[in-house]
Amino acid sequence: MNVHTAYTVLDLVGTFAFAISGAVAARQKRLDLFGIATVTFMVACGGGIVRDICIGAVPPAGLSNWRYLAVSLAASAVAIVAYGPVRRLRHSVLFFDAIGLGLFAVTGAEKALSYSHSAELAILMGMVSAVGGGVLRDMMLSRVPAILEREIYASAALLGATLEVGLTEAGWSSSWTAWIAVVACVLLRLASLYFGWRLPVFHAREDDRRGER
Amino acid sequence: MNVHTAYTVLDLVGTFAFAISGAVAARQKRLDLFGIATVTFMVACGGGIVRDICIGAVPPAGLSNWRYLAVSLAASAVAIVAYGPVRRLRHSVLFFDAIGLGLFAVTGAEKALSYSHSAELAILMGMVSAVGGGVLRDMMLSRVPAILEREIYASAALLGATLEVGLTEAGWSSSWTAWIAVVACVLLRLASLYFGWRLPVFHAREDDRRGER
Amino acid sequence: MNVHTAYTVLDLVGTFAFAISGAVAARQKRLDLFGIATVTFMVACGGGIVRDICIGAVPPAGLSNWRYLAVSLAASAVAIVAYGPVRRLRHSVLFFDAIGLGLFAVTGAEKALSYSHSAELAILMGMVSAVGGGVLRDMMLSRVPAILEREIYASAALLGATLEVGLTEAGWSSSWTAWIAVVACVLLRLASLYFGWRLPVFHAREDDRRGER
Repeated sequence: MNVHTAYTVLDLVGTFAFAISGAVAARQKRLDLFGIATVTFMVACGGGIVRDICIGAVPPAGLSNWRYLAVSLAASAVAIVAYGPVRRLRHSVLFFDAIGLGLFAVTGAEKALSYSHSAELAILMGMVSAVGGGVLRDMMLSRVPAILEREIYASAALLGATLEVGLTEAGWSSSWTAWIAVVACVLLRLASLYFGWRLPVFHAREDDRRGER
Repeated sequence: MNVHTAYTVLDLVGTFAFAISGAVAARQKRLDLFGIATVTFMVACGGGIVRDICIGAVPPAGLSNWRYLAVSLAASAVAIVAYGPVRRLRHSVLFFDAIGLGLFAVTGAEKALSYSHSAELAILMGMVSAVGGGVLRDMMLSRVPAILEREIYASAALLGATLEVGLTEAGWSSSWTAWIAVVACVLLRLASLYFGWRLPVFHAREDDRRGER
Repeated sequence: MNVHTAYTVLDLVGTFAFAISGAVAARQKRLDLFGIATVTFMVACGGGIVRDICIGAVPPAGLSNWRYLAVSLAASAVAIVAYGPVRRLRHSVLFFDAIGLGLFAVTGAEKALSYSHSAELAILMGMVSAVGGGVLRDMMLSRVPAILEREIYASAALLGATLEVGLTEAGWSSSWTAWIAVVACVLLRLASLYFGWRLPVFHAREDDRRGER
C-alpha cells in the first residue's frame, strides 16, 4: 500500500479511535449532547490544533478540514447510539488508540519538520499532536491529565517522534522512517498495556508533605 | 442605526455583560483583587483571543485594543463596589449576556471569514468567540465548563454563527444576515432560559460505570 | 557586567528556579517521571510560549531553543534525586523564583514591544511571560491558579512590565529601564513575602451565596 494512502486511511482511523475514547469519557461525565461532541472533537483534533498554532500553520487543519470534524461527529454518534457495545469493545478501542498515537506522533513530527528545521521542535510537536487532545480533555473535565500519572503513553509518542526525526536527519528514506517510528511507538504502547509497565513515581515522604505550603 | 455603529456599541455591551458574569464568578470563588480582574478579562476577551490566534490575526485584538481591557476593568470595579445590586440584577445580566453571545458569535464568524474562506472554520470560530471565554474561566476555576453540561448556550452560538456563514455564502446582504443571525441566537438562548430547554444527557448505566477504568 | 550577558545568565537562572518550583509541585502530586518532566517544562517555558504565540513569534523560543528544555530536564533531575535538600532550600527557591519573575516580566515585555508597538500588549505579555507557566501548571493539576487567590505575585510582574514599557516609551536608555524594572518587581515580590502583604479579597455574604445558581 502506498505510504500516503495508508497515512490518510490510518489518520482517519486514529482520529476515530481518539474520538471514541473522548466520547466515552464525556458520556461518563454526564455531559449533554453538545458537551459530548465538543470533548470528542477536542480529543481527536486538539493536539493537532495546538501543534499547528505553535508552528504557525494557521488556520489549523483540524479546524479548516471538514474530515476531522465529520469523523469526530460520527464517533460521538456511535458512542451515544451504541454505548454498550463500545464499552464492551474497549480493548479494540485501546488497540486503535495505540495506532492513532503512533501515527499522530509521526505525522505531527513530519509536519513540524516541514515548517521549521528544529529537530527539538519536531520531536516536541510530534508528542503534542499525539497526546495534546487527551490533555485538553482532562483539563476541561477538571482532572489531572492521565498521561502525567499513569502508564507509558506520552513516552511511547516521544519514542515514535524521536525515531522519526532522528532517522530523517540521518538521511533515511521517508517511507522507511515513518513505518519504523509508527511501529515502535505502537509496540511500546501495546507492550506496556499488556505487561503493565509504568514509569517510576517518586513518593514524597510524610515529613516532606507536612512542610508544604 | 448604522450596522457598524450598532456593532461597536453592542460589542462593548456584550463585552461588559460577559465581564460582569466573570467578575461575579471570580468573587464567589473568593479570588483576590487581581484574580477578579484576570478572570473578568479572560471571560470577556478569552474567546476572541483564541479565535484570533487560530485564524492568524496576531496580536489578538483583545490584547492590543485598550477598549476591551478598559471595559473588563470597569466591570471588575462594578462587581466589587456594587456586588449586591449586581447579584439582584442577574436577570438583566443574563439578558445582556445573551446579546453578547449572539453578537460575538456573528462578529467572530465574520472575522474568520475575512481571514480565510473556510465556512467550517468560520462557524467554529464564531462559536469559540462566543463561548471560549466562559470555557477558559471554568478551566481556570477548576470546574467542568458549564456549557458542556447545562443549558442551550453554545448551541445558540452555533445557530447564530451557522446562519451568519450560511446566509453570507448564499449571497445575502451583510446587514441582513448579521441581524437575522444575532436575533436568532439571542431568541433561542432567551427562550431556552425561559422554558428551561436543555439538550439531552445520556445516563451511563450502573454496569457500564462498574466497568470503567 | 554587560546587560545582555547578564540577561542570558539570569534568564537561565530564572528558568531553573521556575522549573524547580514546577518539579516540586509535580512530585507532590505523585506524577510519574514523565509527568514531572512535563509539568516542570510547562512552568519554566509555558508563559513564554503563550507570549510568543500571541505576538506571532512562531515557533516559540521555548520549543525551538534547546537550552530551555535542557534546563527544565536538569531541574526535574535535581528535584527527583535531591528532593529532600530542595524542600529544605525552599526559601532560596523563592528568592530565585522572584528573580525569574522580574526578569521574565521585563524580557517578555521587551520582546512584545519589538514585535508590535502596542504598549498595552507589551505590558500584558510581560505579565503572561512571568506568570503563564504557573497558571498552566495549576490548570493541569486541577487547582485554582495560586496567583488568582494568594499573594502579590502577578501584581509584581505587572509592576515590572509596566515600568519597563513606561520608561522605554519615555525614552530612557534600555539598560537602565531593564534594571530598574527587574529590581522593582523583585523587591515588591520579596517584600510581600517577608511582610505577608496580600491583595484584598471580597467576601460574598451568605445571602448572596444562597442566591447563586
